[in-house]
Amino acid sequence: MPAPAHPERTSMSDSAAPALIDLNADLGEGFGRWQLTDDEALLSVVTSANVACGFHAGDPSTMRRVCALAAERGVVIGAQVSYRDLAGFGRRAMDVPPEELADEITYQIGALEVFARAAGARVGYVKPHGALYNRCVHDAEQAAAVVAGIRAAGGHLPVLGLPGSQLHRAAAEARLPVVGEAFADRAYTDRGTLVPRREPGAVVHDPERVVKRAVGLARDRAVTSLGGTRIAVAARSLCLHGDTPGAAELARRVRSELTAAGVHIRSFV
Amino acid sequence: MPAPAHPERTSMSDSAAPALIDLNADLGEGFGRWQLTDDEALLSVVTSANVACGFHAGDPSTMRRVCALAAERGVVIGAQVSYRDLAGFGRRAMDVPPEELADEITYQIGALEVFARAAGARVGYVKPHGALYNRCVHDAEQAAAVVAGIRAAGGHLPVLGLPGSQLHRAAAEARLPVVGEAFADRAYTDRGTLVPRREPGAVVHDPERVVKRAVGLARDRAVTSLGGTRIAVAARSLCLHGDTPGAAELARRVRSELTAAGVHIRSFV
Amino acid sequence: MPAPAHPERTSMSDSAAPALIDLNADLGEGFGRWQLTDDEALLSVVTSANVACGFHAGDPSTMRRVCALAAERGVVIGAQVSYRDLAGFGRRAMDVPPEELADEITYQIGALEVFARAAGARVGYVKPHGALYNRCVHDAEQAAAVVAGIRAAGGHLPVLGLPGSQLHRAAAEARLPVVGEAFADRAYTDRGTLVPRREPGAVVHDPERVVKRAVGLARDRAVTSLGGTRIAVAARSLCLHGDTPGAAELARRVRSELTAAGVHIRSFV
Amino acid sequence: MPAPAHPERTSMSDSAAPALIDLNADLGEGFGRWQLTDDEALLSVVTSANVACGFHAGDPSTMRRVCALAAERGVVIGAQVSYRDLAGFGRRAMDVPPEELADEITYQIGALEVFARAAGARVGYVKPHGALYNRCVHDAEQAAAVVAGIRAAGGHLPVLGLPGSQLHRAAAEARLPVVGEAFADRAYTDRGTLVPRREPGAVVHDPERVVKRAVGLARDRAVTSLGGTRIAVAARSLCLHGDTPGAAELARRVRSELTAAGVHIRSFV
Repeated sequence: MPAPAHPERTSMSDSAAPALIDLNADLGEGFGRWQLTDDEALLSVVTSANVACGFHAGDPSTMRRVCALAAERGVVIGAQVSYRDLAGFGRRAMDVPPEELADEITYQIGALEVFARAAGARVGYVKPHGALYNRCVHDAEQAAAVVAGIRAAGGHLPVLGLPGSQLHRAAAEARLPVVGEAFADRAYTDRGTLVPRREPGAVVHDPERVVKRAVGLARDRAVTSLGGTRIAVAARSLCLHGDTPGAAELARRVRSELTAAGVHIRSFV
Repeated sequence: MPAPAHPERTSMSDSAAPALIDLNADLGEGFGRWQLTDDEALLSVVTSANVACGFHAGDPSTMRRVCALAAERGVVIGAQVSYRDLAGFGRRAMDVPPEELADEITYQIGALEVFARAAGARVGYVKPHGALYNRCVHDAEQAAAVVAGIRAAGGHLPVLGLPGSQLHRAAAEARLPVVGEAFADRAYTDRGTLVPRREPGAVVHDPERVVKRAVGLARDRAVTSLGGTRIAVAARSLCLHGDTPGAAELARRVRSELTAAGVHIRSFV
Repeated sequence: MPAPAHPERTSMSDSAAPALIDLNADLGEGFGRWQLTDDEALLSVVTSANVACGFHAGDPSTMRRVCALAAERGVVIGAQVSYRDLAGFGRRAMDVPPEELADEITYQIGALEVFARAAGARVGYVKPHGALYNRCVHDAEQAAAVVAGIRAAGGHLPVLGLPGSQLHRAAAEARLPVVGEAFADRAYTDRGTLVPRREPGAVVHDPERVVKRAVGLARDRAVTSLGGTRIAVAARSLCLHGDTPGAAELARRVRSELTAAGVHIRSFV
Repeated sequence: MPAPAHPERTSMSDSAAPALIDLNADLGEGFGRWQLTDDEALLSVVTSANVACGFHAGDPSTMRRVCALAAERGVVIGAQVSYRDLAGFGRRAMDVPPEELADEITYQIGALEVFARAAGARVGYVKPHGALYNRCVHDAEQAAAVVAGIRAAGGHLPVLGLPGSQLHRAAAEARLPVVGEAFADRAYTDRGTLVPRREPGAVVHDPERVVKRAVGLARDRAVTSLGGTRIAVAARSLCLHGDTPGAAELARRVRSELTAAGVHIRSFV
């Protein structure tokens, strides 16, 4: 097993044993009449809820309900911030000027915070969504803007994202805690980065393999790359997808197999 | 001078002498490329800024700028909440189900609060905008929903509105402070209510008369009705309009004439 | 069986025998990432497709796909026009000024027409959606605005709606063809009007009864009211709902039972 | 004077003498309560109106009014298509998937066409707006998508754009007429391309110089580059800006000086 490609991606609370993992999923991604995620089912599985804040999805009533449910179950509420793009579900990269982007991030955090507080909780972290997430892996300017927006919202909210991303560099520079996440259903390159979605084999569809990889990532901090090499992936959180058929069921299996493998499941906040 | 038609409209901080008045105006009512109000000029006149929160107007960057400027000048920041209707500028009444409406109000307050806090201030009050304002004069259900939304946002934010309105009744019932406002450029009926905009003579266009009425409302708590009767109007705040040509100049004149007449100008918060 | 309460609701192409019915359903009611209706399945059942035009639902790509599929299968394309209200799915009545409403209707028809034409078809009729549909039953002003918007779009598009509605009166006055529709899953009063949704028994949930009522409405032009009276309902089209689980399956059963009962299924255009 | 850098940018109706020029400007760029362009004044100057279609600006009522006025004055109506981005006024480049982008273009053309037709006119050409315009200079994929969207709208609409742009290449390939435009208030490089806005000297602010350059571009098909070289610029249309103070007045001066210089002002359609 080679040395980790990105030693800096070790997250803030990494420690030796026993293995400790957070489970995060995107929630509240409906809008008005439209529903997407099985929020209720997923909230009984995850420890961190990435709640949509109204820019790519998420209407006020859904935000209130998800926050209330999350608070009730002790699930940490995170702001899933996004480009302003309901029509594209935040999946279309946008050249938003940095200051404007920062303000849009701040706005979203504020809008979620009021519902978190109404539920007796707080926004515990921030995670960019979709195209903004992907853009902030490599784009230092937008990453800095997102971090500026988080800082303007006050507190020192941890930033959940890809280890080694520009987002994490910018967050660390601004002294915000960074939390790395891994994906059990995504293929990794030998260098420890994600295989782009457009390439063949990028997504792992077989539930058995997803579960097995989740356990490997959480317990052994390692996974087999698309090329067949065993690589180290140090992540404090696992991202579970919630918007596919059978997602909640698969999430439940991942959780119970993790527990069976001796992994402690606990949020990073 | 007859007795006031609505004795309950006496606002929370009414006292004898000297006359005390707050000046409020709608600010930040641009959206992206579009500007409407001369925010900078008005912020040097008013004591309370009704800041648009993004539903009928108001983008995040404008909200941040207006909050920063208001905080700098000691102007109190209020959440100017609205129906979700950019295309109609919040001027089209909507049958929003109460729970949904409450959540939309909460969302807007939260979104503004984060910018107020970033500026070192707080949201100091709430005032509904446009069609929502008008609807909440008579519609007990929507008024209650607005109040529920304000309460969910936490704190005990004062509600700025029309004396005697359903909004004020609902707010008082929920133990929120109520603050009554008057309009120097609107005609009043003999009963002390506003003459509907569609009726002739509803709006006072002559600047001289507006200034004179402002002084009368603030110092004497009285105004001459459209019918020619002298009526009592007890308001702790005067609403100045900021979206017409010459608005900032007129606002400045109102302020200086009020001061010259011995009226103290002070926010109600 | 009493005489029909609204003799004027007899639609444009009523004739003696054999019974002839159109089946219409709302389609294309997704938006971007969100899907709602099983467009493909319903397009193999209905003869008229009420296609969402982007104001309450319906993105351009969905509109193109639904039009292409409808044209391919010989299903008539109708413009399902709505208030501009994505967040409320067009279900919140809005006080849109008549001229503005007319222009919004025209815009939507034009936007759909271009996709219909690209598919080698035309927009064949107009049907208001949700709150606008309900409002136009009683509100003569908005009904007239909708009709003005349809006329401005050119041609003489038939207006699909509730027999006896203000919408039909306004359309007839403007010499637009009117087509009445009935609902197999909605309860009727003794007077032949729909029982409001909020009242108990307003919606018929049992599939067997829905199928039976559909046959009665189409073949016998009659249905049993909520009060147990047999009443006449003269409708040229039956509205099938497409946004509930099992909707496509129920629609298929309705169609096959109608055929079995000797009813001819044919669009009204 | 060197040979033109892009010989292909010669537009469709270039001929010897006398000089012939079209004047185009962006119009109808308000939205609801917000106004931006002095549509009425500009419509008495230009021969081609780039009408906003609702995606970056332009509400249905404004579209109707601008189309009616344009038709009345014999001004050709063009569809000013854009990214779906009201908050950013279409100035933020977006990675819209090609098929989605094509459909969004088609939608906008259809929405404008219905108002043009209601005014007794037709949409005569298409011009992308803002970030989409800039993107289509170099991005072959998005340029092809825009052209696909125009073709789906039917007819063979001319495409107004930058000579030598990917948009023009794609349009020519699809056998759509291309029309090149020049900017009297923008600096040119020695190669005949526009100096990017961020560089110093990119915009010509002095009205005298703008007028003089307009005449040079129209009559002599040449302009002095930022570097001081005289270069050939073959354009059939001049773009006048309408969203700055004094814009209408400057446009009027450009027009009268062109006429005085013997240039015929005529639309390209």
